[in-house]
Amino acid sequence: MFIDRLTDKIRKLQNPTVMGLDPKLEYIPFSIREKNVKLYGSGFKAAAESILEFNKRLVDAVSDIIPAVKPQLAYYEMYGTEGIKAFEETVRYARQKGLIVIADGKRNDIGSTSEAYSRAYLGETSLEDGAAERAFDADALTVNGYLGADGIKPMIEDCIKYDKGIFVLVKTSNPSSVQLQDMVVDDGRKVYEVMADLVLDWGKNVIGECGYSSVGAVVGATWPRQLKELRERMPHTFFLVPGYGAQGGGAEDVAGAFDRNGLGAVINASRSLMCAYKSKKWEGKFSEDEFDLACREEAIDMRNELRKVCSL
Amino acid sequence: MFIDRLTDKIRKLQNPTVMGLDPKLEYIPFSIREKNVKLYGSGFKAAAESILEFNKRLVDAVSDIIPAVKPQLAYYEMYGTEGIKAFEETVRYARQKGLIVIADGKRNDIGSTSEAYSRAYLGETSLEDGAAERAFDADALTVNGYLGADGIKPMIEDCIKYDKGIFVLVKTSNPSSVQLQDMVVDDGRKVYEVMADLVLDWGKNVIGECGYSSVGAVVGATWPRQLKELRERMPHTFFLVPGYGAQGGGAEDVAGAFDRNGLGAVINASRSLMCAYKSKKWEGKFSEDEFDLACREEAIDMRNELRKVCSL
Repeated sequence: MFIDRLTDKIRKLQNPTVMGLDPKLEYIPFSIREKNVKLYGSGFKAAAESILEFNKRLVDAVSDIIPAVKPQLAYYEMYGTEGIKAFEETVRYARQKGLIVIADGKRNDIGSTSEAYSRAYLGETSLEDGAAERAFDADALTVNGYLGADGIKPMIEDCIKYDKGIFVLVKTSNPSSVQLQDMVVDDGRKVYEVMADLVLDWGKNVIGECGYSSVGAVVGATWPRQLKELRERMPHTFFLVPGYGAQGGGAEDVAGAFDRNGLGAVINASRSLMCAYKSKKWEGKFSEDEFDLACREEAIDMRNELRKVCSL
Repeated sequence: MFIDRLTDKIRKLQNPTVMGLDPKLEYIPFSIREKNVKLYGSGFKAAAESILEFNKRLVDAVSDIIPAVKPQLAYYEMYGTEGIKAFEETVRYARQKGLIVIADGKRNDIGSTSEAYSRAYLGETSLEDGAAERAFDADALTVNGYLGADGIKPMIEDCIKYDKGIFVLVKTSNPSSVQLQDMVVDDGRKVYEVMADLVLDWGKNVIGECGYSSVGAVVGATWPRQLKELRERMPHTFFLVPGYGAQGGGAEDVAGAFDRNGLGAVINASRSLMCAYKSKKWEGKFSEDEFDLACREEAIDMRNELRKVCSL
């Protein structure tokens, strides 16, 4: 089951980090970009090749210490079809290197269309004469649950059939998440708590040996109190926690996401890892071309910070 | 402004229909699929070529009577990079033929990532040396507002800058939309009404000469009473109404979406138009290869039905 694969890997590496792969062009060292512009001109193809090279070297740098990566689809879609190709290759490469890949697409739709998304990212697509092929074949997908159960069920079926997972948005890391998510409904729950209860229910038939479900929840590191409350409210729900590092969350902020065994959450950091080579902290220690080494050092520091607040 | 382009076209054609382009492989006549399998084998490439050919002929069949099309991204993503290419080509082709293209992706994320989605579908992507290129360049994008304003604002900026639109999910057509969207919050509003009020507010600086905003709302045809109530609640918000035809909604069900001038909504039909050639209604009148003619006849019938409930 997906969630057992994820928790096994977290335990083995004693590290609940997921590295976000949100490759803005300006994150990528000039030498890589320059080379690809020379080879392919200044269009999407060069950008996509630079992204892929950057991602591969980041993956190589951390694949023995970090259990999972989370490519954010928006940053690939903005480079058109070429960007999507880079996404596809990134997923394939990271999985080959043994990393678990969470496709961050926040997909959502009514039942029949949700099924199509599920086929694209988790399952397989039927073709002529009974043939079938996998499109992007990630290990898990982030999902928006605003449409309710019938948009989620096809994905859960594929989680079971193909050994995959989903993470449903519950309380997002951004400041204006309060606008809708923190409204109080007439039974006293906040909207994100209503969503939390739905997610807990949706996941009840996909619980692994580790005690957690392959239907997880997204809860932002920027809301430490809510993280802690939701950990109690959702005892079988694994959390994907964005907002660590550049968005402002630290190890203490995410402490509440873990259970007494140190399990219960993966903590995402994107910019702080990808752009470690640009940070003041590592100034003078790494050249631009050693961005991967800087990422590794930062990943080790992040792991050590997280180990202080979760006893794996 | 996007909304003026859309309403001008609706008025000119006296037709508030948008044709959904959700091309499941089984919708496509066998002869087209067979030809492409012979040319490209049975993989994604053949499927994508079949989809594109099917879409182009449907677009040709209705471009003088229907103002807009709505390709649903999930049905392209499920065919991988090849499917995305077919999406890209479909958008380009439909716009060349003068149709307005609403990319149905229900995208959503925190501010910085929402900006990337906006660049992908509405604006343009910056490249090296100050260059920029457009990725998918639709006229409008459907959006999920669960994350609140900061996930929406970058898109509104691009709506202004690039003459584009967004449609934010308010009350979706599926049965389980009640689970979250119909919860009552402590001031007496339902969650979808909270979202409606947010959408009305987000759209207030993008109102066109027609009196409607380029920030629209998605409200399902399957909820006739709510459609009528939301029309009154959101006087400046244009509606994208899915759920007509195969999902069960009829002309009377969507009547409440229109204002006294017959404006206020585009009504989406997908399967009933794309697969008209398969329906009992047209049995014996069209061969499989005349699927486009069947679609046109069905589109004319739908237009005439809608004209009964909106006086354009």
